[in-house]
Amino acid sequence: MKIVSKTILFFCAALLTSQAWAFEALPKQAPAPKDNPITKAKIELGKQLFFDPRLSKDGTVSCNSCHNVMASGTDNRPVSVGVDAQKGGRSAPTVWNAAFLSTQFWDGRAASLEDQAKGPILNPIEMGMPSADEVVARIKGIPGYVKQFKKVFGGKDPVTYDNLAKAIATFERTLITPDSKFDRYMRGDKKALSKKAKAGMKLVKDIGCTSCHTGPNFSGPKNLKVGEGFFQKFPTFSGSNYDKKYNLMADLGLYSVTNKDSDKNMWRVPTWRNVAVTAPYFHNGSVQSLDEAVKVMAKTQLNKDLTEQQVGEIVAFLNSLTGKFPKITMPRLPDTPNTSLVN
Amino acid sequence: MKIVSKTILFFCAALLTSQAWAFEALPKQAPAPKDNPITKAKIELGKQLFFDPRLSKDGTVSCNSCHNVMASGTDNRPVSVGVDAQKGGRSAPTVWNAAFLSTQFWDGRAASLEDQAKGPILNPIEMGMPSADEVVARIKGIPGYVKQFKKVFGGKDPVTYDNLAKAIATFERTLITPDSKFDRYMRGDKKALSKKAKAGMKLVKDIGCTSCHTGPNFSGPKNLKVGEGFFQKFPTFSGSNYDKKYNLMADLGLYSVTNKDSDKNMWRVPTWRNVAVTAPYFHNGSVQSLDEAVKVMAKTQLNKDLTEQQVGEIVAFLNSLTGKFPKITMPRLPDTPNTSLVN
Repeated sequence: MKIVSKTILFFCAALLTSQAWAFEALPKQAPAPKDNPITKAKIELGKQLFFDPRLSKDGTVSCNSCHNVMASGTDNRPVSVGVDAQKGGRSAPTVWNAAFLSTQFWDGRAASLEDQAKGPILNPIEMGMPSADEVVARIKGIPGYVKQFKKVFGGKDPVTYDNLAKAIATFERTLITPDSKFDRYMRGDKKALSKKAKAGMKLVKDIGCTSCHTGPNFSGPKNLKVGEGFFQKFPTFSGSNYDKKYNLMADLGLYSVTNKDSDKNMWRVPTWRNVAVTAPYFHNGSVQSLDEAVKVMAKTQLNKDLTEQQVGEIVAFLNSLTGKFPKITMPRLPDTPNTSLVN
Repeated sequence: MKIVSKTILFFCAALLTSQAWAFEALPKQAPAPKDNPITKAKIELGKQLFFDPRLSKDGTVSCNSCHNVMASGTDNRPVSVGVDAQKGGRSAPTVWNAAFLSTQFWDGRAASLEDQAKGPILNPIEMGMPSADEVVARIKGIPGYVKQFKKVFGGKDPVTYDNLAKAIATFERTLITPDSKFDRYMRGDKKALSKKAKAGMKLVKDIGCTSCHTGPNFSGPKNLKVGEGFFQKFPTFSGSNYDKKYNLMADLGLYSVTNKDSDKNMWRVPTWRNVAVTAPYFHNGSVQSLDEAVKVMAKTQLNKDLTEQQVGEIVAFLNSLTGKFPKITMPRLPDTPNTSLVN
């Protein structure tokens, strides 16, 4: 994994925003790595695994528990609850459009969706499985999974932790929302955005938000390679009342991965897609309303105090980024006849 | 609610089985009470509520957590896990075809699906909401629900606990599996059942299993009214090794509702539908395999020791009762912009 701290980009913000930066619609398909092509059978297998609580120690937590696909792709709470009612330290990011992020997790410690999928299953306060081997053993105890792993991956020993992650990542690549009002506007429907949203669209560019929240996913330049992180210091302008009010500096972000002083309070730039429905906000879920989140970001990242009108316009624009969530058929989780598997 | 202990039926078993008792296919539609007609919008609302963990105290447990519609309609574990990682005392019965039961819960204490739906939400070890009023308040905090309750139920104050239960029950009435091999056989496809399954079908009638496991849902006579329970003592023939081995008598069943001595160890007769995929078995989930469950039932209820061949035949028949699970589109849970609702 290659973590590139692009702090330098922030200092080029003035330059960037003066250029003819173009907003971009979300592609209608997410990219997939060459060694994990998308197939229908793999999507179906990944969907089952994503919704299967048997991937957790005590059979109570699935990927979907915290990244709720039936909702905004998150659990809409400050921090998530894992096995044994344990609370995590960071707010669950949405799984919707995660396929367009160049690194995963708030601190970007996973390069790909595949890498990410392997984390929470083994995290003691999330899904709590003791080891990858135990996960594989459990999957091997479910005949319907063994059959599908064989079909999807082939080979002598297809039920592996890597393949499990590949299947989940493949399902996640279908979780995209390319038909927001903003996207329809970008594709030519000039009535798709309200006047207020258009004013907000101009504003986020003029004041510099889009120097970080750029690209089709508003989470960084579109040509970043997988694993090439796009980070920003938060707060960049420390010292405002918000630091203490929302406890913004306690979690050191990327530093907790690299132990480099320059990475203190560095965070992967999160997407704006569906941001209006993914409250509460920030890595610690400390801010409930989008209005307040916009004010905090303007102050801490751009050292700007916005007027209520400006906030309203930006929020109107952000609301235009809420996508149409595709209809998804529920998976059928494979049966375990004659055993309860989890006790 | 009217609980009628039909112990007498057991003692008439010999008589019943000598009659020309006919097996019956499952109806293709579940019955609905007059005051809660099935509508498309109500099914959709009920589906959302069924899958919404925000109906639990801490936002971690939904109806689906224990009655997993993506699986066998249960959580396939001895006892379920509720909020704060608390374990319940009884095994979650399947929600599939619960619409054909005349009473709900293992002890039949709820007359209808509507009554049942109100229980777990307020049960401190299940979903743990402190009161019906708090549930209603939480629903009222989700604009998308308020809108749907208005549309579905109308009136001045449509968001009520009763209406919530009505919506959930309506969704549950769609959770039926009328196309098992057995049903196809009963509808004329004589090849749908294997020779072994047919032998099992004859056997369950000849030895008396069907004196209780009767009717289209194999859970009692088909003409029972809503709330008219169909109970049986388990074990009826106490004293076998199984009593202790599987701790069959510790939970007093219906007695815990009525406090009548005659109701000690009385249980509602559970369905056979999908029984092959709902391990583990019995009210306490103490038995893992269907073979063993069949042996235990023959011994404790009919005082019969079955041969391995007989067990195999009965299990083959029971396997023919696994239905085709209909495809269901995932609900979209209504958003809560600007608030996390559950912390």
